Amino acid sequence: MRSTDPATLLAAARAGERGAIGRLISLVERGGDSAKAVSHLTWADAAESYTVGLTGAPGAGKSTLTSGLVGHVRKLGERVAVLAVDPSSPFTGGAILGDRVRMQEHAIDADVFIRSMATRGHVGGLALATPQAARVLAASGYPLVLIETVGVGQVEVEVAGAADTTVVVMNPGWGDAVQANKAGLLEAADVFVINKADRPGAAEVHRDLEAMLDMHLDLGPWRPPVVEAVAARGEGIEGVWDAVLSHRAHLESTGELARRRQRRAQEEAREILVRTLEAQADALLASDSSAELRTGLANRTLDPHEAAGQLLQRL
Amino acid sequence: MRSTDPATLLAAARAGERGAIGRLISLVERGGDSAKAVSHLTWADAAESYTVGLTGAPGAGKSTLTSGLVGHVRKLGERVAVLAVDPSSPFTGGAILGDRVRMQEHAIDADVFIRSMATRGHVGGLALATPQAARVLAASGYPLVLIETVGVGQVEVEVAGAADTTVVVMNPGWGDAVQANKAGLLEAADVFVINKADRPGAAEVHRDLEAMLDMHLDLGPWRPPVVEAVAARGEGIEGVWDAVLSHRAHLESTGELARRRQRRAQEEAREILVRTLEAQADALLASDSSAELRTGLANRTLDPHEAAGQLLQRL
Repeated sequence: MRSTDPATLLAAARAGERGAIGRLISLVERGGDSAKAVSHLTWADAAESYTVGLTGAPGAGKSTLTSGLVGHVRKLGERVAVLAVDPSSPFTGGAILGDRVRMQEHAIDADVFIRSMATRGHVGGLALATPQAARVLAASGYPLVLIETVGVGQVEVEVAGAADTTVVVMNPGWGDAVQANKAGLLEAADVFVINKADRPGAAEVHRDLEAMLDMHLDLGPWRPPVVEAVAARGEGIEGVWDAVLSHRAHLESTGELARRRQRRAQEEAREILVRTLEAQADALLASDSSAELRTGLANRTLDPHEAAGQLLQRL
Repeated sequence: MRSTDPATLLAAARAGERGAIGRLISLVERGGDSAKAVSHLTWADAAESYTVGLTGAPGAGKSTLTSGLVGHVRKLGERVAVLAVDPSSPFTGGAILGDRVRMQEHAIDADVFIRSMATRGHVGGLALATPQAARVLAASGYPLVLIETVGVGQVEVEVAGAADTTVVVMNPGWGDAVQANKAGLLEAADVFVINKADRPGAAEVHRDLEAMLDMHLDLGPWRPPVVEAVAARGEGIEGVWDAVLSHRAHLESTGELARRRQRRAQEEAREILVRTLEAQADALLASDSSAELRTGLANRTLDPHEAAGQLLQRL
């Protein structure tokens, strides 16, 4: 019999039962009371793990790079888990399956755990579910969790940016540094990787990025290094990983890791609270007691600000 | 002396004073009590105006098309206002200025009002401010308001999709129908325009879009027409406008216009309410009374779900 009790599942996950890990993540994805219980059980232990987010435009080679990083850290003897996050609609969610093929070389390695996450229409839910899923993996004995997203949309950048170290993967000719800035990547990146660096234009992207970083006055004490790689040929993987380790060492030595995590914990609590309030607002707006208010909006005797004010008083 | 009293400004705006219109929109952008007053004053009158949203990838030729539409409706004798919405950061907000140049031919026409809107970091604010700004224009005597966005990000699609008729502008080779679907454009579009249709690939995009529409089971009674245009040469503008008028006639004859507007009014009230609740949540989380809760999150004795639960009880 397959248990659905979070504590039982977590004990099994810690004992190395991979199916139990998957079921815990499914509970997190589904939300509700079970997700809360999983969150409670895994929260403290998750502090022991380190998360690395990878984001970049589709086709930038994130999966290949992630696969290379998995191989590299396995050689270093570490266990590693990968969360592949696709916030696009189920209809176009096929990319995940295609990308996973590149991960198959690690599929039989017992010390590697790979899992895809996709929404079923709840975009906000994924931004909340991903860090919780990462904590499940952490509590299940993976000291390193790589979180790879499929693109550079708002959710993808948010998800990857919520990791301890965020790696932004670009390509020669993919787009200029202005585009990176526009997508919020400059703010999110701790490490830049120019993948497919054997293609024409690598030097230009590298130079543009450095120039953009020069112009960026709010960088703080860490200036994101720009690393070149050709992940498909296994070139530059070590350099990428060393840049991640440098960033980690910087965060740890400055106390910034603890501050970052506290900030993220507060943001997560805030997000859960706001979602709860949103659900209450929706229920109130749709309720019978709001019929008059809805009519007022429709016949334009009540404007949206007034309606919101009335709803606020009744919440 | 420049008045800042909303009622005084609106009277001046109705009398044709363009500066007063601009100041009313500035009040809306700034938010707060003045924005509420403007919303209250303009809400009922706005029902008389019709809004058309235009969205599409950067470079698709939205501004050129908008300018063409302005010229066309002016020939038909209508007054028209344009809101150009750029939710990207001020740092990269230069596109608006460049695009506005294309509008200069209408700058001396007293019956055309053009205004740019950009955030100063408050993305959510723009989604709320734009419909309110459109109502200012409506109440100021513009029976037609075109809302043009600079791209196809979440905010842009949301803003353009909140119009009575939403026009999605594509190009040959810009991207396939799958991309349009991914960006949520298929759901948002009432009219598709293939602009720069003299370029190679126009027929393919046209065919792909129709095939995508064929597959789309939730279309309802209105199937978005696909119209080709070469806006830079003034070709196809009339066809685009006729498609917009057909959609308007469809909405009016079926009663869908009233239903759509009621739905949007409710969504707007809900959004205002949620933003207000968010602000309250932020204040509570940052307050002295939450010091213990913040510490609990930091030293991991309290997980985000528990923290959110405690905050909810205190709100």
